Amino acid sequence: MATLADIGVAAAINIISALIFLLLFAILRLQPFNDRVYFPKWYLKGLRSNPLSSGAFVSKIVNFDFRSYIRFLNWIPAALQMPEPELIDHAGLDSAVYLRIYMIGLKIFVPIAILSWSILVPVNLTSHGLQLAKLRNVTSSNIDKLSISNVERGSDRFWAHLVMAYAFTIWTCYVLMREYEKIASMRLAFLQSEKRRADQFTVLVRNVPPDANESISENVEHFFMVNHPDHYLTNQVVYNANDLADLVAEKKKLQNWYDYYLLKYTRNKEQRPRVKLGFIGLWGKKVDAMDHYTAEIEKITEKIMVERTRVMKDEKGVMPAAFVSFKTRWGAAVCAQTQQTKNPTEWLTEWAPEAREVYWQNLAMPYVSLTVRRFVMHVAFFFLTFFFIIPIAFVQSLASIEGIRKSAPFLNPIIEKKFIKSVIQGFLPGIVLKLFLMFLPAILMMMSKFEGFVSISALERRAAFRYYLFNLVNVFLGSIITGSAFEQLDSFLKQSADQIPRTIGVAIPIKATFFITYIMVDGWAGVAGEILRLKPFVIFHLKNFFLVKTEKDREEAMDPGQIEFYATEPRIQLYFLLGLVYAPVTPILLPFIIFFFGFAYLIFRHQIINVYNQEYESAAAFWPDVHGRIISALIISQVLLIGLMSTKGKAQSTPFLVVLTICTIGFHRFCKGRYESAFVINPLQEAMIKDTLEKAREPNLNLKRFLQSAYIHPIFKDEEYEDDRSEELLEDSDDENCVVVPTKRRSRRNTAANSSASGGSTPSLPFNRPDTGKEKSES
Amino acid sequence: MATLADIGVAAAINIISALIFLLLFAILRLQPFNDRVYFPKWYLKGLRSNPLSSGAFVSKIVNFDFRSYIRFLNWIPAALQMPEPELIDHAGLDSAVYLRIYMIGLKIFVPIAILSWSILVPVNLTSHGLQLAKLRNVTSSNIDKLSISNVERGSDRFWAHLVMAYAFTIWTCYVLMREYEKIASMRLAFLQSEKRRADQFTVLVRNVPPDANESISENVEHFFMVNHPDHYLTNQVVYNANDLADLVAEKKKLQNWYDYYLLKYTRNKEQRPRVKLGFIGLWGKKVDAMDHYTAEIEKITEKIMVERTRVMKDEKGVMPAAFVSFKTRWGAAVCAQTQQTKNPTEWLTEWAPEAREVYWQNLAMPYVSLTVRRFVMHVAFFFLTFFFIIPIAFVQSLASIEGIRKSAPFLNPIIEKKFIKSVIQGFLPGIVLKLFLMFLPAILMMMSKFEGFVSISALERRAAFRYYLFNLVNVFLGSIITGSAFEQLDSFLKQSADQIPRTIGVAIPIKATFFITYIMVDGWAGVAGEILRLKPFVIFHLKNFFLVKTEKDREEAMDPGQIEFYATEPRIQLYFLLGLVYAPVTPILLPFIIFFFGFAYLIFRHQIINVYNQEYESAAAFWPDVHGRIISALIISQVLLIGLMSTKGKAQSTPFLVVLTICTIGFHRFCKGRYESAFVINPLQEAMIKDTLEKAREPNLNLKRFLQSAYIHPIFKDEEYEDDRSEELLEDSDDENCVVVPTKRRSRRNTAANSSASGGSTPSLPFNRPDTGKEKSES
Repeated sequence: MATLADIGVAAAINIISALIFLLLFAILRLQPFNDRVYFPKWYLKGLRSNPLSSGAFVSKIVNFDFRSYIRFLNWIPAALQMPEPELIDHAGLDSAVYLRIYMIGLKIFVPIAILSWSILVPVNLTSHGLQLAKLRNVTSSNIDKLSISNVERGSDRFWAHLVMAYAFTIWTCYVLMREYEKIASMRLAFLQSEKRRADQFTVLVRNVPPDANESISENVEHFFMVNHPDHYLTNQVVYNANDLADLVAEKKKLQNWYDYYLLKYTRNKEQRPRVKLGFIGLWGKKVDAMDHYTAEIEKITEKIMVERTRVMKDEKGVMPAAFVSFKTRWGAAVCAQTQQTKNPTEWLTEWAPEAREVYWQNLAMPYVSLTVRRFVMHVAFFFLTFFFIIPIAFVQSLASIEGIRKSAPFLNPIIEKKFIKSVIQGFLPGIVLKLFLMFLPAILMMMSKFEGFVSISALERRAAFRYYLFNLVNVFLGSIITGSAFEQLDSFLKQSADQIPRTIGVAIPIKATFFITYIMVDGWAGVAGEILRLKPFVIFHLKNFFLVKTEKDREEAMDPGQIEFYATEPRIQLYFLLGLVYAPVTPILLPFIIFFFGFAYLIFRHQIINVYNQEYESAAAFWPDVHGRIISALIISQVLLIGLMSTKGKAQSTPFLVVLTICTIGFHRFCKGRYESAFVINPLQEAMIKDTLEKAREPNLNLKRFLQSAYIHPIFKDEEYEDDRSEELLEDSDDENCVVVPTKRRSRRNTAANSSASGGSTPSLPFNRPDTGKEKSES
Repeated sequence: MATLADIGVAAAINIISALIFLLLFAILRLQPFNDRVYFPKWYLKGLRSNPLSSGAFVSKIVNFDFRSYIRFLNWIPAALQMPEPELIDHAGLDSAVYLRIYMIGLKIFVPIAILSWSILVPVNLTSHGLQLAKLRNVTSSNIDKLSISNVERGSDRFWAHLVMAYAFTIWTCYVLMREYEKIASMRLAFLQSEKRRADQFTVLVRNVPPDANESISENVEHFFMVNHPDHYLTNQVVYNANDLADLVAEKKKLQNWYDYYLLKYTRNKEQRPRVKLGFIGLWGKKVDAMDHYTAEIEKITEKIMVERTRVMKDEKGVMPAAFVSFKTRWGAAVCAQTQQTKNPTEWLTEWAPEAREVYWQNLAMPYVSLTVRRFVMHVAFFFLTFFFIIPIAFVQSLASIEGIRKSAPFLNPIIEKKFIKSVIQGFLPGIVLKLFLMFLPAILMMMSKFEGFVSISALERRAAFRYYLFNLVNVFLGSIITGSAFEQLDSFLKQSADQIPRTIGVAIPIKATFFITYIMVDGWAGVAGEILRLKPFVIFHLKNFFLVKTEKDREEAMDPGQIEFYATEPRIQLYFLLGLVYAPVTPILLPFIIFFFGFAYLIFRHQIINVYNQEYESAAAFWPDVHGRIISALIISQVLLIGLMSTKGKAQSTPFLVVLTICTIGFHRFCKGRYESAFVINPLQEAMIKDTLEKAREPNLNLKRFLQSAYIHPIFKDEEYEDDRSEELLEDSDDENCVVVPTKRRSRRNTAANSSASGGSTPSLPFNRPDTGKEKSES
């Protein structure tokens, strides 16, 4: 077990690396040529169009104003200054609520840490358990003196820990309830204050039953005319444009290449660039690159035209789903919340997601397929969680010296070199695992897509849930009980129900130092790395150099990125779990957690204000999940404490803690009943109020025109747009990414591209990531 | 272990006792003076007013027509003749669907038995496991030769059992799905064909928030006027009439006594009956009984008047709940299915239950109280299930010789007598347990009432669910692993997850003979006892002698009873469980189960046609529960087979069976999604169709008048009625139960009485039972 000094060293290393990141950031962000990397949000908002300093060419790239270097830390107060209402205005409710997750961490753990240090640490310190143990030659460090390990077996001092467990639970529940209440009211206020939006009037109808005599559109129209006679307004069918989307993505890629060669030619007019036609340009006939791509683009444009006509005309091109719009919000709210026919698998209605949040590919899934897919994904996730180590081990074995020797003998001379050998042996297995973990959120996202959710926020929430489970099993439990998840599963199956918490509980105090190190590496240095934005930094400058011709191109080369809820939130949850589990056991861990929450809050507030640009707004629909996971962390911590106590000769405390657990579950159910519906349902009263206000303000509103084309597959909007300019393109060879039109158009294109890849199974998402923000242009 | 001969003897005993019951029934039911005991349904329907035979006085009491004795078994074909649609018409959908539970038992188990006997029995018989075991001195009987015990450890013959497990599961699921589909369509057709009923237009609103300036009624009116402007029609507030109901019940009791003494006086005019005023009439001043009760009744009538005025006038007499009626079924369906305000704990709407099904006492519970109550009841039920043996053992110890000696020394001389001693030692402990088990459904019903469900059918369903769990733990598991449930729980907690199915699995084949005996005692003789109706028989004749003066009184003294869903369905489920568990293990059990289902079907069909009179109609709302419990029996059987197989050296079959279990769970989820909503929700399309039809047929219908007083607390209806005749009562001293008015009045009074007792905690329900049917008079 590590000593205080060991931890001090580790802390120093991590604090220094974090400081280096921060220093680098402080310097880089002051350079005008990085302005678009570190302040893209302001550009997208149109509030900034050029780096702040102006003057000579050099000073446009490097900042020579030394006064600004002196104030290099002033981003910190700046990040904290913006008040929350303004933040919601600036970045949306999702972002503001996301920040509150960090804040809730502080709210929970600061009082818990104070209590814990003022009561439990003295209790632990003045005990003599370790001295007694030392007599039996059990080694321990001075950290253990602060932890529960120092209390004698069966001592009455454990009641202090038990009472504290109650206090911590009560405090956590109190904070959680306050927060749930606050966020529910924030969400309702946000929805209420929003201007008129198509999704307020629209319901997504799925599984429209086929009718021999009518088209889908007619069928939908007749059905709602009859069953919602006073409220039905119009409907838009959903075209199956997946193939079309593929073609458009292909065209975009070709245009990228065209632009690249064009730029190359512009810079060096003497030689027209040439390209080989064979496999990824490595061999084959050489042709003039620009002519080649012009021809290819023309070809594919034609294909797109044909496909588009086919989709629009072909009966099979229409999916059995539609967006049905109503005259009033009340009508839409009613339709979304009710069952239409006696067959609950037909005419399924739900509140339509925002148009840019719709995941179009999944709209056509029939009910049975959904059940089967969901089931298959549950099974797949089970195997992924418990057996992921098997393929990893296989790849690692391939990536070992022996493996390479066998599978690629021609590499023998290279790998025999000592340096390369040590690299392979030392790093490759680790890198394989690291790569898998990097791609894991993307893999889970693909699984969610396969499951058939129709809105991006639902996809993200499902992926986040699975990522949380994976972390819980493989990071948390996997670190406590060393061994693969599968071995754990096996040993759990063979252990009795009351033995499992003991096995884990007894290991908890021992692993405290490991987790302290983990928090510092992942939570401190990792978060500091986030602010540096290394990947977008590199990619922006590469694009800037190779593709950018106009100011507009530069705009599009920016990658503001966004909060990847499904990848980040489950990792925050790990800190809640660690904090709650260790609060009564090893209070020394708490300051590290508190520092993480405070630091991350600061960093992410800065990023949200200056960098991130959310693709969609779900109005904090994720909160019930966040709340639920903190509660489950609380319950896990209680069960593990039961286990720990029973190994400490305090088995009689079990009923005392079981009552606490049951009360916590009761609290969860109460919160669920009380607040959750605010995140799922649109209440009629609210809808009626908005309807009435609107009717009074704009009695002659033509709603139908407003709603007519709100839910057109984004590809058609793009298409129209691309068609308009397809000649223009060949004439003046404008760039491919075009004007920043202040609409929502194309904001979903990157998702479309991803999902077409999800049919395959390459983890394409992270690779697309750099392009994510490029097309976002609503502000 | 019992031999075939043992079982033969047990079967003979039970068949003989069943035959004796049937014979007694056949004779008793032919006696005219029993006509009202065995054919009350026909009297209530008004299709029979006098025993069939007429003639001399004696032949009105005893049947001397010997021809009818020869045909004494002809009730059997008669019970089977009535076709199902007519049965639904005659007894309601609930009863018809209840019969289908027995039918589904036959549908599932007849093919399974055939398959099992033609494949598994030969496989088992031709094995030699027991011969080998005999060499090691393990005793066994010839029944075991037919069971899985006879197959050698690790033999490949077990694959036959595994494949059969698949076949049984697939068949069971197929039957279940067909049945679910059929019953869902029956329910919808039934609801659709029903004539206009108040509950189709009405929504129950609970948790109306208080308003300082408005009464509840005004508040409700304004809220729905605003939020359902096109559909709102009227509302009826709910009065807190619990005290009033108590007074009315008290009055009724007094009148019963009055009637009793009056009749006594009429029969013996010489002496006016006198009564002592002290403790239960044992001592105190003697007064004239009739005068005394007349005065008492007058007093209480006055009290009732005062209380009634108070309830109607007092603001606090109005509960924060209301029945809100709409102009159309569509409007009601919308309101019931939607959330009204952003606070999901206020203005809670749900489809109103039938007026006679409302459980009035629970209408006023606030949301938090509901959560707490539900939670408390969960905990209480947990303790009831696992620790019920503790108070029972305590009472048993009191009821033992030693206990009586200590607590009541003055009884010493009596209990010293040998006969009484042996009775106490032999019977009393058993009787205490039996009494507890008899009252258990009533106790569970009281728990449901405490939980705050507002409709009788919901109360019954919850009680049934709990009773099922109790049976599962204490009867099924308790019989397999001998020992109290608490000991089981303890040993389960200390066993590993994969050890538990083994422990149970290995005990299953051994317990087959025990369960065969159980089926014969509980299922054969018990069901035959049902048709005899011993309790109603005795009570009817007692009442007939002591209270009945007019033909009307006789009508009211009848106790048709009804299917006690919460008490009987969970017991049927035990047979499903036994059948499915033993089908692959000990096929010899199946014929016994099949006989039970067939016999019970016959008996209950007869009872439903001739006797039972349901208090309310829930249109088979209980089916999802029945379905779910059969599925869970299936899953239990699979898990136990896994356990059994792994003790039989076939642990490698575990994945094979786990897949089956997972598929079964998947099937359950599919069925839930596909069919369950038909039992919960009123789809808009159906509502619209009925609305449209009605509008076309009766364009000038005055719906408001129809709905105005549909949901008045039954006590007020009674009250008005009683007031009308309160003078009349004192004049001509008519009996208290009065005319059979063809309305729904007072149909819920007995429940009202119960629930007021549920505040106490005496298991009052079974005692009220005999009076249950007395007040039902709608036909």
